[in-house]
Amino acid sequence: MAKHHRVSIGIDLGGTSIRVAVCDSSMRLLDSCSMTTRVAAGPQSAVEDMAAVVRQLLENGIKRGCHYDVVGVGIGSPGPINLRTGVLGSLPNFPGWDNFPLRDALTEALGLPVTLESDANAAAIAEWKLGAGKATGLESMIMITLGTGVGSGIILNGKIWHGMFGMGGEIGHATIDPDGLLCGCGSRGCLEMYSSANALLRLTLAIADSNDGTPALRKLADSPEMLSPLLVAQLAEKGDSGAKLAFHQLGRYLGIGVSNVINTLDVPMIVIGGGVASAWALFAKSMFQAMRDYSVVYRLVKPIQLEEQEHNCTFVCPAALGPSAGLLGASLLPYLNQSLELDTVEVQEIAQ
Amino acid sequence: MAKHHRVSIGIDLGGTSIRVAVCDSSMRLLDSCSMTTRVAAGPQSAVEDMAAVVRQLLENGIKRGCHYDVVGVGIGSPGPINLRTGVLGSLPNFPGWDNFPLRDALTEALGLPVTLESDANAAAIAEWKLGAGKATGLESMIMITLGTGVGSGIILNGKIWHGMFGMGGEIGHATIDPDGLLCGCGSRGCLEMYSSANALLRLTLAIADSNDGTPALRKLADSPEMLSPLLVAQLAEKGDSGAKLAFHQLGRYLGIGVSNVINTLDVPMIVIGGGVASAWALFAKSMFQAMRDYSVVYRLVKPIQLEEQEHNCTFVCPAALGPSAGLLGASLLPYLNQSLELDTVEVQEIAQ
Repeated sequence: MAKHHRVSIGIDLGGTSIRVAVCDSSMRLLDSCSMTTRVAAGPQSAVEDMAAVVRQLLENGIKRGCHYDVVGVGIGSPGPINLRTGVLGSLPNFPGWDNFPLRDALTEALGLPVTLESDANAAAIAEWKLGAGKATGLESMIMITLGTGVGSGIILNGKIWHGMFGMGGEIGHATIDPDGLLCGCGSRGCLEMYSSANALLRLTLAIADSNDGTPALRKLADSPEMLSPLLVAQLAEKGDSGAKLAFHQLGRYLGIGVSNVINTLDVPMIVIGGGVASAWALFAKSMFQAMRDYSVVYRLVKPIQLEEQEHNCTFVCPAALGPSAGLLGASLLPYLNQSLELDTVEVQEIAQ
Repeated sequence: MAKHHRVSIGIDLGGTSIRVAVCDSSMRLLDSCSMTTRVAAGPQSAVEDMAAVVRQLLENGIKRGCHYDVVGVGIGSPGPINLRTGVLGSLPNFPGWDNFPLRDALTEALGLPVTLESDANAAAIAEWKLGAGKATGLESMIMITLGTGVGSGIILNGKIWHGMFGMGGEIGHATIDPDGLLCGCGSRGCLEMYSSANALLRLTLAIADSNDGTPALRKLADSPEMLSPLLVAQLAEKGDSGAKLAFHQLGRYLGIGVSNVINTLDVPMIVIGGGVASAWALFAKSMFQAMRDYSVVYRLVKPIQLEEQEHNCTFVCPAALGPSAGLLGASLLPYLNQSLELDTVEVQEIAQ
């Protein structure tokens, strides 16, 4: 006899790969698949690729004797997206995809209800419901993701805050320094230019070139094409003062950005995710110092709750789910969109 | 026979004066009174002063043959306030008032339900319901008040956003320049240091001292104790290039602060209030230019709706109510707090 599962399907659309997951109503991963994103073939081909994989995963279930009752499909996409119409804006790494009606196209291809969100919002939902925010019971949380760029998702009173044009949460493009570096977005001095993975590499190269550069860091900087955040982190963990300084500088800038968010919104929790965030111990101290320096709200509320455990507190903390957050969040979207209850949630890590 | 009026009582607590209003359910002013704030006499004396005035105003009504049915009392107070407990924090201009339970003391003195808000939130509510936001039907709006300092109130989905500790909306202390001027709050480079009335005077004196100083501006700056935002504005309106530059610089900084808010929240409307905002025409152009320079969200959404009328648009606009906003907002608080409907609103200006 077939096992019945209430499932949702999550799709994480990225510039290099598309990941698809089937999760049960406890957000346990039942099946998943990853494929290369054929960006050049255009968005309609990508939608057909996604639909084929979804059908394959559903058939796999039947072959294994499972009956899937699909509550819906969630997809996280890079922005900008018009979340009212479900139409893509001008995506930096997807030439030719402008103005593609992703939500409608996927709905038509699958014959299932589709919920579209930005990837940053999907990751924020996952961290809120299943990750760092899970045990807190908090209804408001902001996630800042330090990747190639800096993304963010804002959850206020249990709902994603979209803003008027679906463009809320561009915290990565808040100004840290009005006279600072020119950002790809066209503004100057954006947080993204100082706290992303790319920013870490730029800071590292600048330090290697300065009096603060150590022989080991200079050696690393001699092959800039080989340089990666991981290598800088490994050197810093060995105690290299130059590599440590790069993370220290990144943390200070991030702390200024976080301060502005706290001063503006006084949210109870900010989760820092993305690849760079795994080096938490290397930048947390300078981030918290900058928060003390730049946030009057943080200074006033901190003594109430977290004096003793600042570096391991719930107020500003590292993400818990790793790179699976976007895919898990996409799988959660149908539940949030339809106000469905999850069963007791037991998360297992999804391999990338 | 007595005329029946459903009324609310609004109290605006300021460092120099306390204003009290009786408004009917259309927010028409029925009666009002202003008195000096006896700061040095302590908060309990101030509460007794307020209660005496409220009783006097209610008796005035009876003498005029009106029967007042009081739905509640609203009070706007300078912050910081713990809005959960109704207890004042450490108010800069109220020595000895720290930790005073303002809401409970006023409730006890009056025997009426009291709603306490920050003065910035009260002004924001008034602009939203009765002022610049009245005709828009928008459910989200932020008001930034350029006074001695820079205050702000955030309304999201029809409710004041308080944040976790009731300290949301400290936009005046968001960082504009991490290496900038030291603010009274203890942070460096706060918006308040660059866009308040005090900031305008500081900018004016610096310009007078520089190559951009004109003879007329230098004459004004020779008596700094006489200098006021109004005098600088009058000189700028006469075409003085130095005075115009001061407003231009203020507008640019304000635009950076507004950009950060738009990038973070994508709110549909930002209202600029306070004394400095009455010189709108002198700083709006540089403010909008800074928004184009520093807000990717503004650049992306602007073409949709406001290309043609940027300087007189609903997106970022001057406040409509003037200095009465705080008192009107206080009078509105009981309605919002009890989810009561207002009657058709016809606002008349309340004399200060």
